[in-house]
Amino acid sequence: MKHCLTTTDLSIEDINEILTDAEYFINGGTWRPERNIFIANLFFENSTRTKCSFEVAERKLGLDIIPFEVSTSSVSKGETLYDTVKTLEAIGVNAVVIRHSQDRYFDELEDKTDSAIINAGDGCGHHPTQSLLDLLTIKQEFGGFEGLKIAIIGDIRHSRVARSNAEALTRLGANVVFSGPSEWFDNGLLQNGEYEPIDEAVKSADVVMLLRIQHERHGDNAVKSIDEYHHSYGLTIEREKTMKDRSIIMHPAPVNRGVEIADSLVECERSRIFKQMKNGVFIRMAVLKKVIEQTEGSMNHVNHHQKWSITH
Amino acid sequence: MKHCLTTTDLSIEDINEILTDAEYFINGGTWRPERNIFIANLFFENSTRTKCSFEVAERKLGLDIIPFEVSTSSVSKGETLYDTVKTLEAIGVNAVVIRHSQDRYFDELEDKTDSAIINAGDGCGHHPTQSLLDLLTIKQEFGGFEGLKIAIIGDIRHSRVARSNAEALTRLGANVVFSGPSEWFDNGLLQNGEYEPIDEAVKSADVVMLLRIQHERHGDNAVKSIDEYHHSYGLTIEREKTMKDRSIIMHPAPVNRGVEIADSLVECERSRIFKQMKNGVFIRMAVLKKVIEQTEGSMNHVNHHQKWSITH
Amino acid sequence: MKHCLTTTDLSIEDINEILTDAEYFINGGTWRPERNIFIANLFFENSTRTKCSFEVAERKLGLDIIPFEVSTSSVSKGETLYDTVKTLEAIGVNAVVIRHSQDRYFDELEDKTDSAIINAGDGCGHHPTQSLLDLLTIKQEFGGFEGLKIAIIGDIRHSRVARSNAEALTRLGANVVFSGPSEWFDNGLLQNGEYEPIDEAVKSADVVMLLRIQHERHGDNAVKSIDEYHHSYGLTIEREKTMKDRSIIMHPAPVNRGVEIADSLVECERSRIFKQMKNGVFIRMAVLKKVIEQTEGSMNHVNHHQKWSITH
Repeated sequence: MKHCLTTTDLSIEDINEILTDAEYFINGGTWRPERNIFIANLFFENSTRTKCSFEVAERKLGLDIIPFEVSTSSVSKGETLYDTVKTLEAIGVNAVVIRHSQDRYFDELEDKTDSAIINAGDGCGHHPTQSLLDLLTIKQEFGGFEGLKIAIIGDIRHSRVARSNAEALTRLGANVVFSGPSEWFDNGLLQNGEYEPIDEAVKSADVVMLLRIQHERHGDNAVKSIDEYHHSYGLTIEREKTMKDRSIIMHPAPVNRGVEIADSLVECERSRIFKQMKNGVFIRMAVLKKVIEQTEGSMNHVNHHQKWSITH
Repeated sequence: MKHCLTTTDLSIEDINEILTDAEYFINGGTWRPERNIFIANLFFENSTRTKCSFEVAERKLGLDIIPFEVSTSSVSKGETLYDTVKTLEAIGVNAVVIRHSQDRYFDELEDKTDSAIINAGDGCGHHPTQSLLDLLTIKQEFGGFEGLKIAIIGDIRHSRVARSNAEALTRLGANVVFSGPSEWFDNGLLQNGEYEPIDEAVKSADVVMLLRIQHERHGDNAVKSIDEYHHSYGLTIEREKTMKDRSIIMHPAPVNRGVEIADSLVECERSRIFKQMKNGVFIRMAVLKKVIEQTEGSMNHVNHHQKWSITH
Repeated sequence: MKHCLTTTDLSIEDINEILTDAEYFINGGTWRPERNIFIANLFFENSTRTKCSFEVAERKLGLDIIPFEVSTSSVSKGETLYDTVKTLEAIGVNAVVIRHSQDRYFDELEDKTDSAIINAGDGCGHHPTQSLLDLLTIKQEFGGFEGLKIAIIGDIRHSRVARSNAEALTRLGANVVFSGPSEWFDNGLLQNGEYEPIDEAVKSADVVMLLRIQHERHGDNAVKSIDEYHHSYGLTIEREKTMKDRSIIMHPAPVNRGVEIADSLVECERSRIFKQMKNGVFIRMAVLKKVIEQTEGSMNHVNHHQKWSITH
């Protein structure tokens, strides 16, 4: 695995390996690259949890992080993503984590860079580390995926994770259904799951996976009033009461409290929302490890400068 | 001391302990947390010296700093401070330094987070590390506080430090007077000091503590012309000549040169302005140490990942 | 060498020493300061490669970097560069890397600060580490400078490197010519090289050194249409074919592809553009070493806090 670009690219073996490594890290396991690894986090879209989560993961692995702020970079002088990545590579950066508003921004980079690319979200496309942390959270709860019913509810069309989570979960043996405003469903999703009305979906699912309304991706009038949305498609206090005994609530966050989910349910007993965030750090450690191990195999050994000479 | 939120919350013992630890650091003493501590600096208002000062202090203690830029965080997607702090906590951040424009922003966080909160300024409220570094600077000069006369002069109403410095100094035995535009004085301050005309205050004080005109907190017409202010309430070259032999000048900075204080006095012999900045780093080291020691007592020992395994 | 401000200030010995040290680092050599060095990168103008290059260099030398973002600093409260630098110095910063739009911003700082200043670009003035990395790239290619013909082509008037590169190259024994729009040439350049028409310059030079069109420094109408510029003064595919066998192409980047140089030539065999970036890191390591060694000679040994005590 040279890069980590989409969930779809990951084989079942890849996924299982990453989940296992993440659990190893959760249990206090450690790993360090053989040599100093320089990494840059290129976030062309705003983020708190994904960016900070990568930063914590990178520090826990002892990587050297080169700060990169889009607003003060040469991107504002019109430099392309390609030239930016090649520049960082020339400067000695071994891996880049990228979030970018363009779908599949990585297609033009993939074969032309020696740096490893870790996709932290592309347009309405993919967000593999989010998918993987969702899988880990489900696995921790149920021990596996076979036969589970997962209801993915909300802004399916604009969601990076809806499509790729559905695809991966189906491959792993789970049954996926989609719910939310039916006009946000499209037939392209049918191969990974059917549409189901919200009340039916909530009642029967093992996992109620809510999606964030992406106000920033909709036009002004596309979203119904908040109250109306919450009432029609949100996890209200009433709907939560119909959920099965051991079923859980997930949400990739940031949560619009009172919209996708009632305020008081965000931290309720069924909620795994903050646990997802916790898992995110360990998933990212596992992904970084996998990608770096591959990089190390192909690295030029000549210009190698140890940072902490004493530790080797 | 789980958090460090206001000067008023600090007991005389706390204050003395912090001043002693700061002096220990000034004299070359070192201290390290027992385990890897992740910290984030959340500055919702601009700052050079406070933010950089915390960064230096954190690095000197070997903490792991997770960069957080408000402008590129999910705060710009409408995420609340509460959700931001809980997110950072989930991701593994053990302590957060926060500056925020809302008075007592920490009231809604204090009891609901496991992260330690260090207040780096709330609205027109508190700024405990600034107060502590002021106290340290005075103690270094005079050996103590008993019987000293401290004149706090200028934009008293909008100052984070006026109120809390006055309160702490009074508790420690000093006599505080306030000066500056009388319309910025209010009777709520009377418990910690009286109003005194500027010329009288400057002439008799051991410490002339000037405050910054907070242009950003006043309406457009609230501040008199710069020249007029300087002439009426600033430390002019003439007024400085009336100061007592060993009395000193302090200012929390950034200084509006030629407004609160004549340009040439900023670096004059009486000035302790840059010494205050120097002291700030060591005060912050002492506060961080105190808060982290408390955190360590209550930390979960299971998921503990040493960063620099060799150093232990 | 307390500061590193202009190429002109560097003696031939300084230059040779820096090039030698850079080659030592390229070949895997390492160097560490005797004590913990705090450094801040103050970029008042946008940059990717220079800022990141300094960051990588600083990390490779084990320096402690204090993040400084202009937009969220007190500069936005009107603080001057002088007060900002003095503040950082008070806080414990030993060296500052500065990029600023004002020509010779450092004149007001040079003698008044204990911090070492490394100039990363001042207005249309100097950019010594860029000049040095250009020199290194040429030396690697040709073994020396004596008798080489260097053609500096393009936006000569607004270029930080045109003037200082020409001056240094002339001192080192090379022959410099300038080309590009003749209205951007001025007689002040004559002491370091004559003007030559583009086709003649490209054909006869050992090094074709293209300069970036600084759209941000021109008025709106000053730059001809992109196509016209490329055709008249750019390195077109046709012109490249007239170059001598072993001659090379250089550009300080970011490149305006299709303007100063044909898109496909940016990564052609003659191009050393990405090699220049690679060299930049090692040049900056060498400059930082030189400046820090000087600082260490004059540092106060009392308040010295080792960060990685084990490595000493």
